[in-house]
Amino acid sequence: MTEKAERAMQSQRALMGVRDLVISGGIRAGSRLSEVALAEKLGISRTPLRAALARLEQEGLVDAIPSGGYAVRSFTREDVIDAIELRGVLEGTALRLAAERGVAPARMGELHRLLAELDQTQKGEVEEMNFDAYVDLNAAFHEKLWSLASQTISREIERVTSLPFASPSAFLDKQADVMAFRRSLYGAQAQHRAMVNAIELREGARAESLAREHARLARQNLEFVLDQDRSLIRRVSALSLVVG
Amino acid sequence: MTEKAERAMQSQRALMGVRDLVISGGIRAGSRLSEVALAEKLGISRTPLRAALARLEQEGLVDAIPSGGYAVRSFTREDVIDAIELRGVLEGTALRLAAERGVAPARMGELHRLLAELDQTQKGEVEEMNFDAYVDLNAAFHEKLWSLASQTISREIERVTSLPFASPSAFLDKQADVMAFRRSLYGAQAQHRAMVNAIELREGARAESLAREHARLARQNLEFVLDQDRSLIRRVSALSLVVG
Amino acid sequence: MTEKAERAMQSQRALMGVRDLVISGGIRAGSRLSEVALAEKLGISRTPLRAALARLEQEGLVDAIPSGGYAVRSFTREDVIDAIELRGVLEGTALRLAAERGVAPARMGELHRLLAELDQTQKGEVEEMNFDAYVDLNAAFHEKLWSLASQTISREIERVTSLPFASPSAFLDKQADVMAFRRSLYGAQAQHRAMVNAIELREGARAESLAREHARLARQNLEFVLDQDRSLIRRVSALSLVVG
Amino acid sequence: MTEKAERAMQSQRALMGVRDLVISGGIRAGSRLSEVALAEKLGISRTPLRAALARLEQEGLVDAIPSGGYAVRSFTREDVIDAIELRGVLEGTALRLAAERGVAPARMGELHRLLAELDQTQKGEVEEMNFDAYVDLNAAFHEKLWSLASQTISREIERVTSLPFASPSAFLDKQADVMAFRRSLYGAQAQHRAMVNAIELREGARAESLAREHARLARQNLEFVLDQDRSLIRRVSALSLVVG
Repeated sequence: MTEKAERAMQSQRALMGVRDLVISGGIRAGSRLSEVALAEKLGISRTPLRAALARLEQEGLVDAIPSGGYAVRSFTREDVIDAIELRGVLEGTALRLAAERGVAPARMGELHRLLAELDQTQKGEVEEMNFDAYVDLNAAFHEKLWSLASQTISREIERVTSLPFASPSAFLDKQADVMAFRRSLYGAQAQHRAMVNAIELREGARAESLAREHARLARQNLEFVLDQDRSLIRRVSALSLVVG
Repeated sequence: MTEKAERAMQSQRALMGVRDLVISGGIRAGSRLSEVALAEKLGISRTPLRAALARLEQEGLVDAIPSGGYAVRSFTREDVIDAIELRGVLEGTALRLAAERGVAPARMGELHRLLAELDQTQKGEVEEMNFDAYVDLNAAFHEKLWSLASQTISREIERVTSLPFASPSAFLDKQADVMAFRRSLYGAQAQHRAMVNAIELREGARAESLAREHARLARQNLEFVLDQDRSLIRRVSALSLVVG
Repeated sequence: MTEKAERAMQSQRALMGVRDLVISGGIRAGSRLSEVALAEKLGISRTPLRAALARLEQEGLVDAIPSGGYAVRSFTREDVIDAIELRGVLEGTALRLAAERGVAPARMGELHRLLAELDQTQKGEVEEMNFDAYVDLNAAFHEKLWSLASQTISREIERVTSLPFASPSAFLDKQADVMAFRRSLYGAQAQHRAMVNAIELREGARAESLAREHARLARQNLEFVLDQDRSLIRRVSALSLVVG
Repeated sequence: MTEKAERAMQSQRALMGVRDLVISGGIRAGSRLSEVALAEKLGISRTPLRAALARLEQEGLVDAIPSGGYAVRSFTREDVIDAIELRGVLEGTALRLAAERGVAPARMGELHRLLAELDQTQKGEVEEMNFDAYVDLNAAFHEKLWSLASQTISREIERVTSLPFASPSAFLDKQADVMAFRRSLYGAQAQHRAMVNAIELREGARAESLAREHARLARQNLEFVLDQDRSLIRRVSALSLVVG
């Protein structure tokens, strides 16, 4: 391996290692990250580690602290609500611009194919819903939507959804056993359909507000987890970082 | 000075040094940044330099390149248009949420004071407009608006406006001598007034679209510079990075 | 009975008589309405009949014709789509203004009570849904929403929904036997909940776009009836007036 | 003249006669309209008079009263504010749909021609503005915008703007001598330009909110007249019907 490739791999390993550690709740929210301890634990040198921490600061998972170094960020309920809001706003912007500027038929075809596959997972009775397939296809569908945006917009979406609880998959795979939640996926899929329809009809305002409303499902799930069934907290990535 | 303080200062110097160099057009868009040359030129060591480059990648001024290292980003006209759009969307979100959630009277008072001071700069004939005061007060007014937002939103605004041509001040101080441009500031100030009025009346939708429309003034100025008077390009920060 | 009361009753009878006749498809779209024949058929005199026709012109069910008199209006598919759009826009305005201006807790309580009753109709399996109760409660819920608006706005809503296919009840009671349609009511009720939630959180933009999207369900049903199952046309009031 | 033509002319004369009488403040707000007195004063028979009153009820200028007959409507400040809001909402809908559905180049050309003519009235110093030409061209421009809408939407705009204070010309021709008002027309014309630009770029959301914001100028003028300079009340059509 060349030295450069080696360095790139080290960077990648550092980034993923620290991110996983933070998201999994392995380090308490608010506590300082020791570079020495992290370097040892993850088996990486300090230069890629520092780059990883700088990147995670940008993602909003760690905060630079005045004395130098970084601490795991702690989030309030309001922080999470605003991160979800921001995701909705940015996805909404991507969809609005796509509707206004027009999308090539081939790409619309891809969206329709994903819609049809999502429909397949919801055929039959609610108990028979193919949950795992829905989760995967939902992620693929959202990524396809993001790909309609210019790099300037999709960059921001990528950054915002790197906060795990702001991603469209955040609450999805944790509640397969709650019937009311399963049923809510009919509405979610209806919103997917409406978004594609709005882009096709060049209805930018409608596409934008659909994306925002769709993101509100995540907020609804957040509030359910925090207020009704806190046992789910440890099942949702990074939710252990939320205090109060 | 403690070692930590020394390190923090080095980081800051590295960040500002590289950013200025890139923005001023001192390095050609698209060309690779040599760490060795930069470290020497700015008199800083490689660790703070790398952190600075990682940060500038987040801001969107440099791109990581596959072979390792970074290159100065080059922007298309569309990139700049979308960066301005994004600024409008994010400022709009800040204002909408402020209108919906309510703002304390003391903070509204501060906004009204700035509005009154901005009005003062526009008294009398158009030739007598106090341009320099307008530029400063305009920047202060926008920062006050951003401060209404939660950290989650204001972080994003800060990042997006770190692209110089996306900032609300971008085109402002370059065209004092163009009469049509001066006259357009009456409309800009009317929009400032309307934004504050909308927040006060809890009109979130209106506040949001006013902020977006306000950002379109920057796009209008961009198009004027690129299409009508390219001699102004070198006067606007970072516009030298725009190709085509 | 006093003469005045007698006259008021005559007016009312004339209005309802002619409207029913037109809506039921009893007179072919486009054909001229003979005052003599109508007066005889409905057993009313010409003065209240003319007032009724003037009113129906305002509602958009009949057109004044150049030679004097009125003809039953014929609607294109686009006319119906725009009438539904208009209903969504006006309901959206009512909700946005309610969210921005605030609603007294007692009235919010009434909305919550209706939401809870609507929920009751959807308990259990989809086959067990209490369809008739849903239809009545849905109408009551929409009327309660309209009552939040000032007279200026609610007047317009009343006029627009007097075109039968633009009313929120238009397609509702005709498709109890179509399973996909029943299932779509989960999404409709989720929208009802979201509208009330948005008003409560003072989210005017969200409330407005929810009302618009909610009206799109009617358009979706319209397109289903016209394109997939034309046998339903005669079941939906006034849809016989739609040509092409 | 045929009997029919005679009847049509009578209807027209009745409608315009009563409307002028009401708008000019010739009958006090709230007072009952005597059919006998009106028929005599305007020299028309009772049948066309009743049709005219029914039409004016639809326009919102008179109210049917429980005892039979009609009374001149009195408006509160809130009524006028909502009528202006409604005009903005409906014009906004017309523009949004035009942007989404696309407009033929020939019609865009007509809008551009009117924009250019409006620009001509604003050349030179503010004192030299050609006010009368601006007023006429402004009315023509708005009518051209309305003509982009389908009949379903333009009907509503027509009805709403038949309330004189809700029309885009309402406050325009009364304040030629107020310098601040003249200057505000630069902003109004910038909004005209932006609306056309938004339609061209297929930006429906932007076009809609521009139309709404444009209507707010009327509200601003209303508040100026009612709160700052009540001497202007009698100069604005129908404003004498506003109480409180």
